[in-house]
Amino acid sequence: MKLLLKLGLIASLLITSSFAEKVYKLRIATTWGPTLSPLFDAAENMAKIAEEMSNGQLKIKVHASNRHKAPLGVLDMVKGGQYDLGHSASYYWKGKDIATLPFTSMPFGLTAPEQYAWFYYGDGLDLMQKVYAKHNVLSFPGGSTGVQMGGWFKKEIKTLEDLKGLKMRIPGFAGEIMAKLGVQVTNIAPGELYTALDRNNIDALEWVGPSMDINMGFHKVAPFYYTGWHEPASEMHFIVNKRAYKKLPKHLQKILKISMRVAAYDMYVQNYDMNAKAWEKMKKEYPNIQVKTFSKEIMAAMKKANSELRAELSAKSPELKEVLDNQEVFQKRTREWTKMSDYLYLKDNLE
Amino acid sequence: MKLLLKLGLIASLLITSSFAEKVYKLRIATTWGPTLSPLFDAAENMAKIAEEMSNGQLKIKVHASNRHKAPLGVLDMVKGGQYDLGHSASYYWKGKDIATLPFTSMPFGLTAPEQYAWFYYGDGLDLMQKVYAKHNVLSFPGGSTGVQMGGWFKKEIKTLEDLKGLKMRIPGFAGEIMAKLGVQVTNIAPGELYTALDRNNIDALEWVGPSMDINMGFHKVAPFYYTGWHEPASEMHFIVNKRAYKKLPKHLQKILKISMRVAAYDMYVQNYDMNAKAWEKMKKEYPNIQVKTFSKEIMAAMKKANSELRAELSAKSPELKEVLDNQEVFQKRTREWTKMSDYLYLKDNLE
Repeated sequence: MKLLLKLGLIASLLITSSFAEKVYKLRIATTWGPTLSPLFDAAENMAKIAEEMSNGQLKIKVHASNRHKAPLGVLDMVKGGQYDLGHSASYYWKGKDIATLPFTSMPFGLTAPEQYAWFYYGDGLDLMQKVYAKHNVLSFPGGSTGVQMGGWFKKEIKTLEDLKGLKMRIPGFAGEIMAKLGVQVTNIAPGELYTALDRNNIDALEWVGPSMDINMGFHKVAPFYYTGWHEPASEMHFIVNKRAYKKLPKHLQKILKISMRVAAYDMYVQNYDMNAKAWEKMKKEYPNIQVKTFSKEIMAAMKKANSELRAELSAKSPELKEVLDNQEVFQKRTREWTKMSDYLYLKDNLE
Repeated sequence: MKLLLKLGLIASLLITSSFAEKVYKLRIATTWGPTLSPLFDAAENMAKIAEEMSNGQLKIKVHASNRHKAPLGVLDMVKGGQYDLGHSASYYWKGKDIATLPFTSMPFGLTAPEQYAWFYYGDGLDLMQKVYAKHNVLSFPGGSTGVQMGGWFKKEIKTLEDLKGLKMRIPGFAGEIMAKLGVQVTNIAPGELYTALDRNNIDALEWVGPSMDINMGFHKVAPFYYTGWHEPASEMHFIVNKRAYKKLPKHLQKILKISMRVAAYDMYVQNYDMNAKAWEKMKKEYPNIQVKTFSKEIMAAMKKANSELRAELSAKSPELKEVLDNQEVFQKRTREWTKMSDYLYLKDNLE
């Protein structure tokens, strides 16, 4: 072999193999503590899948909130480039950008399959990128909790009158609806919730669902468990710094995107299973827990308050209005199918 | 650089780069025609994702049924090694191996989220590999149709008496249940179904749901559309020849598995959306279509026939019995959660 040819061969092999072997180290900041299943699991699942599929080229370090100390600062840190990726939920930064609110869940809104259909086969994902463009990040679905429960109540709620003056911990948009119904909405740090409920400093609280409520112990001191109305399919989100994303070769971008997509679906399914198992356990240990639904009168008042709040926010933000209107049209059509498929199937088997 | 060292370097680079670049060409046989959305789409989606994530190292050719001419021979072809992979549904080969039946869907069985929870967080996937081990293939979920509709009927069915002697095309296990109720179950080739229904050679037929029924045109000649009971979440399957799988490097095995997993979830969501859109279109063009549910009397008779058939089959196959029993325990627990979450949420919003 001529020397020149040999050198050329070496050079080309060096280029190929260094490209094939180059390791990209990324870091993801999550809103969650390191043992918070299934939320933290979704970020870890994503990182593991990405590393395995890329044959080690993508190494993603997952940081829990105890590491970066800014659980609700995930958007800022990813936007600013301190982290390449984040795992959180868009409604945590509705104060900074109200248009991100509907990408998590809206009261009386889309269920999980409806919402995934909206993201992936409707306009959801495109609208989300449009809203996030100003933050210089990409945003993708990051796992659904499915239906969140309406909360734990110490006394049964029968009429609108029973809600008046009731002290309840329920944050966000749902809290604003409850406030319109006369509830005295309070905010209490998660670590103090159980004691507050036990000592009657609050009368009720909203958390997530059996899978995450069970470790909080609320069922031991407040036996009325109300069904969900305010977060029918809360979607978490992966966010990605655009510059960090652009530095990756095309196939690693694809690996990253698919890892996020599958980790999101997986979290939904994992939590479905966890809820079923946690509920079975709770009910066995505390058979006096009673599942309740709010009365038609209360539901009607909640829906009215919800419509008023949506109208107020839409009037302030045309960007939010575009997303809400799009979701509404999608929901109207898709719910017809949900009714004749899932709903009537379940009704035939449950009643 | 010493010559020996130089040669060693060249050799090691050659190994690295050829490993990194080696292209693996696989072929997948599907049961579906090349335009059959969303079923054929799921196989194509999987192949595309795998190729992109592997940077072209995995090239998977997707063959529609018009190519290999054996739509229901997919298991045999993958088992025999003519194809590396297959995309089909396990209940198509229940005649060869009855224990594969419950991996598609069972009457009065699991819904889509329940079933994915069973596969991935219950024992479903392990049981499936155990059943398929004797065929020397691996099997993975390949996409859910969600709830399939109960079928198109020319006349309204009010009582058990109305079912007696009714000529209906409904294959498989559901057909056996209908036969126990006195229905004259017939089998007719798909291409002749519309004419048979139009000319009253049959009185009713079962197909899939709006997304796939719309192109068949049944709604034009049979206005009563009954809700589903027999296939609440029919899961398609990817099957993989074990030898072909073992030849792949670890990271490509992972890419293949994740591509199948995400394509399966995607198909479920895609079909949810397609059903909603197709139903809206059908209803607009043919406003006289009526959605009906079977009466409590008919449902009770179907459930009784279903239990009898399950018991008969279980007595013949301990392998099938193990799967059915496992599913039943899982369903009992998980349905409690479905009831208090999805079902009561929808009920509050629909009634």
